[in-house]
Amino acid sequence: MITSNPHSMHTFDEAIALRVSERQDVAHEFIGATHPAYANMVGPFGGTTAAQLLQSAMLHPERLGEPVALTVNFAAPVAEGDIRFVARPVRTNRSTQHWIIEAHQTANATQGVVATATAVFAVRRETWSDVEAVMPANLPAPDAVPRMPVTGLPAFPQRYDMRFIEGAFPTDFDEQEQRHSRSTLWVRDEPERALDFASLAALSDSFFPRIFIRRRRRAMIGTVSLTTYFHADSPLLAQVGTRHVLGVAKALNYRHGYFDQTGELWSPEGQLLASTHQLVYFKD
Amino acid sequence: MITSNPHSMHTFDEAIALRVSERQDVAHEFIGATHPAYANMVGPFGGTTAAQLLQSAMLHPERLGEPVALTVNFAAPVAEGDIRFVARPVRTNRSTQHWIIEAHQTANATQGVVATATAVFAVRRETWSDVEAVMPANLPAPDAVPRMPVTGLPAFPQRYDMRFIEGAFPTDFDEQEQRHSRSTLWVRDEPERALDFASLAALSDSFFPRIFIRRRRRAMIGTVSLTTYFHADSPLLAQVGTRHVLGVAKALNYRHGYFDQTGELWSPEGQLLASTHQLVYFKD
Repeated sequence: MITSNPHSMHTFDEAIALRVSERQDVAHEFIGATHPAYANMVGPFGGTTAAQLLQSAMLHPERLGEPVALTVNFAAPVAEGDIRFVARPVRTNRSTQHWIIEAHQTANATQGVVATATAVFAVRRETWSDVEAVMPANLPAPDAVPRMPVTGLPAFPQRYDMRFIEGAFPTDFDEQEQRHSRSTLWVRDEPERALDFASLAALSDSFFPRIFIRRRRRAMIGTVSLTTYFHADSPLLAQVGTRHVLGVAKALNYRHGYFDQTGELWSPEGQLLASTHQLVYFKD
Repeated sequence: MITSNPHSMHTFDEAIALRVSERQDVAHEFIGATHPAYANMVGPFGGTTAAQLLQSAMLHPERLGEPVALTVNFAAPVAEGDIRFVARPVRTNRSTQHWIIEAHQTANATQGVVATATAVFAVRRETWSDVEAVMPANLPAPDAVPRMPVTGLPAFPQRYDMRFIEGAFPTDFDEQEQRHSRSTLWVRDEPERALDFASLAALSDSFFPRIFIRRRRRAMIGTVSLTTYFHADSPLLAQVGTRHVLGVAKALNYRHGYFDQTGELWSPEGQLLASTHQLVYFKD
C-alpha cells in the first residue's frame, strides 16, 4: 500500500526495515526482505539492497558515528523473499569504524551470499571545507521541469520523482547512438520523504545504466560494484529535508562487458551530498 | 637492494611477494611484509598494501578470471613487519567471482585487522567498447617532461618515475591556495617494469593527496577507502608494457575531515586502463 499520508510508514521505510534474527549462532544477524514496491526488471532495485546493507550497520549496537564510505558488491541475483544481513565491525578506532557486511539468502535458487559490502563510519569534526566539483549552473527549478512518466516502467522508478533536464531514459530504443551519456535531473522519493543516509545510499543507485542513454538499445546489464562517499552529515541531510536533490551522472569507459559510471548528488544550495561510482556488467 | 638489472627481481615484486602460511586453522592464508623501499611518511605506501590484498586473490587456487573491481579500506596504521592475508571467494558464478579479503597484523601495536578489501573478478568477452571520458590532448611526450626530483622524499615516490605536466606536488608549502587540485602526469615504475594488475592497483594510489596540491600547506591525511575499476585486461596491459601511462587526478569535495579524489590511468594510445576513486581523512 503506497500512501502520501505522513502519519503512516513510508514505503521506503517498509522496504529497508530489518528485524533482529533469533539465530543464536550468528551475532547481530538482521532479517529484511525484498519489497514489491521496489521491484526492478529482474529482482529488487539494487538501491534498496544497498540501503539494507547500510542499515544493518546503522542499527548495530556497536556502531560509531555516521557513514562516510560504502561499497556494495552485487554477487548474485536476489530472489523475492527474506534476506539475512550480518554486519561485523572489524575495526573500531577513536573516530573511525570499519565494517564488513554480508547478505545471504537461504530459501531460494540463489542460495548463499547475494551481496557484500564494506563501510567506513566516522565521527566528523568541522574543518576547512570546499566543493571542487562543479554543480551545473542556471538550472530550471524542479517545479519548472515535468516529472518523467512512469507508466509501464517497473515498480522502482515509480518510487522516485525524477525530473530530467538532460539525458532522460529513452522512451524509444531507436538505436540512435548518442555522443555521451550524461544525465542531469532533479530527484526525490515519491511520495516525499526526508533525506537520510539510507535514502542517499539508494539514490546513489537510482541513475539508470548509462549504456541505455548512450546507445538507446536494449542490453542485459547488472551493477557488480557500487561505491558511495557520503559528504553529507546529519545536519546537512536535515537541511535538504524532503526537497529534490540534483543528480548528475556520466559514463567513463565501456570495454569488454563492463562499463563504469560516476554520479553526484547535490543539495539545492550547491553542497555535494554524495559522490558515487559503479561498475556495470553488460551484454550487447 | 634496488637495481635496474632486468634479470634480478624488481623491488615492486619483492614488496608484493606472498608466501603460503603454515597455519592449519585458516584456509589459504598468505604472509607478506612491508618493504622499506615502499615506505611512506608513516607506514608503507597504501598502493603496495592494495597490491598485496589483490595478490592474495590472484594467487588463490580457486581464482576465476581477472580483476574488474577492487575496493580497499585502510582500517589502521600498518606497522613494519609481516602482514597476514586471507582472501575468501564468497561467491563464484559462471563468469564472475566475488571476494572478501582481510589483512591482519599480530605482532605489533596495531594488532588486528589493518585493511580489508572486496574484489570482483570476471572472465571477459569482447563487446562493443568505447571511451566516454576524455583523455587530455596535445600532451608533451614523457621524454619532453622532466622527472619530479625525489631527493628528500619518502621511499615510495622514489619508486616511481613521475613527470608532471600540471599540478605537481608543491616543492614549498607556501599556503598559496590554488583554484583546483588537478594533476596530469606521465608515470611508471622506476626502474621500469611491465604493467600488470598489481602495479595498476598500486598506481591507483600513487596520486598525491589532492589537499596538498590545492592548499599547499601541511595536513595530516590518510586514505580510508580506495576503489579501482580495471578497464584493462591482460592483452591491453601487455600492449602498454613498461612505458609511461598518463595519470589524471582531481578532488571533488572537502568537508568536515574527509575529501574524495578521482583519478584515471590512460595508455599512451588513449585507452582508459583504470578509473580510481578514494576517500581521504584530513586534519587541518
